[in-house]
Amino acid sequence: MEQFREDLKELNNRLLEMSGLVESSIAHSVNAVVRRDRDAALMVIQNESRINELEIHIDSGSLRLLALQQPVAVDLRFVTMSMKINNNLERMGDIAVNIAKRALSLLGMPALKPKIDIPYMAGLAQNMIANSMDAFVRRDAELARNVLKSDDAVDILRDELYSKIVKFMEESPIKIHPGIDYLFVARGLERLADHATNIAEDVLFFVQGVEVRHHAQQIQ
Amino acid sequence: MEQFREDLKELNNRLLEMSGLVESSIAHSVNAVVRRDRDAALMVIQNESRINELEIHIDSGSLRLLALQQPVAVDLRFVTMSMKINNNLERMGDIAVNIAKRALSLLGMPALKPKIDIPYMAGLAQNMIANSMDAFVRRDAELARNVLKSDDAVDILRDELYSKIVKFMEESPIKIHPGIDYLFVARGLERLADHATNIAEDVLFFVQGVEVRHHAQQIQ
Repeated sequence: MEQFREDLKELNNRLLEMSGLVESSIAHSVNAVVRRDRDAALMVIQNESRINELEIHIDSGSLRLLALQQPVAVDLRFVTMSMKINNNLERMGDIAVNIAKRALSLLGMPALKPKIDIPYMAGLAQNMIANSMDAFVRRDAELARNVLKSDDAVDILRDELYSKIVKFMEESPIKIHPGIDYLFVARGLERLADHATNIAEDVLFFVQGVEVRHHAQQIQ
Repeated sequence: MEQFREDLKELNNRLLEMSGLVESSIAHSVNAVVRRDRDAALMVIQNESRINELEIHIDSGSLRLLALQQPVAVDLRFVTMSMKINNNLERMGDIAVNIAKRALSLLGMPALKPKIDIPYMAGLAQNMIANSMDAFVRRDAELARNVLKSDDAVDILRDELYSKIVKFMEESPIKIHPGIDYLFVARGLERLADHATNIAEDVLFFVQGVEVRHHAQQIQ
């Protein structure tokens, strides 16, 4: 039993390590785009293998825990929630890599930029991620619910960004290529927010045993 | 024990139902784009709620199975593989919806089309999906390994499509908007292939107990 508690704690800590790494990758990838910072982009790409290692480590650790300790009730929910959060974090790491690659592509072109506020949209997504992980750490259903509410704001902002980028691209053929990179950056930020929403839903399921995926009406 | 075997079989069947639905959604979404078929697009959007229901059903069924039956060894691996495949299928359903929405967007514009072979790329992705699910059904490691090999072909094709779409967009500002829709369709097909790869990796892990995620060198 002692061992079991130790294993759960270890799983918890590894997830926090993973989310720390992923959040740092995201921050670097946004800087790479906004400040045209090649080193930041390269750091994200370097981080990737460590994130992938951690994902496999957490996943196989969870599986071993399920097999050897056969947890039930709240402990079982904790392990399965952890596996899901792990999966979401790994995908967020992939998205950061995609954004970093778009940054490198933009660096190979003249610095033409649509009039969009990437730091603001990135900040929204980053807040959602930080809050969803805080909700996980503190088992805080209220905070998790707040994350779900923020997702709409990101979607509205996304539409605004998209139409500004399209306008930018229509100004001149030379703006099409960078415009496409910016489109995929915006799409990446939107997907990061979606993954934060997934994590918040998993936390709610864990804390309350309530299924809130696919915007079920239980929320509110 | 009788009940346990029943539960495993039920889980297996639900996954097959889910993959059937998802494959049909994908086929409709591709038709919606290629044939400008509004009804096909609407069918995909209708399918979505059923797919989401099934995902939750499979997920909570798996969880219950873990809690009540506490499977070990190969059965435990089966249940966790099923949860992962389930997750991948649900995301593939989302991608089909995204493609269907791009089809509807394209229907609102004049029929301008880049010179790209969407049915060919879609066919590659659809084959990978069908093969990965066949590998699951037959526990066929060889077939799963073939899926992993096909992913490179999709990536090469993707690059070709992208550059043709960009060329198309550069021809006239009126082609930018449809071009963006086609870009995201191509991106969706690429991601479908990625998910098929994930499923094949899960099947290999299940059949052989070998971790092949993140292009480990064991493959070959």
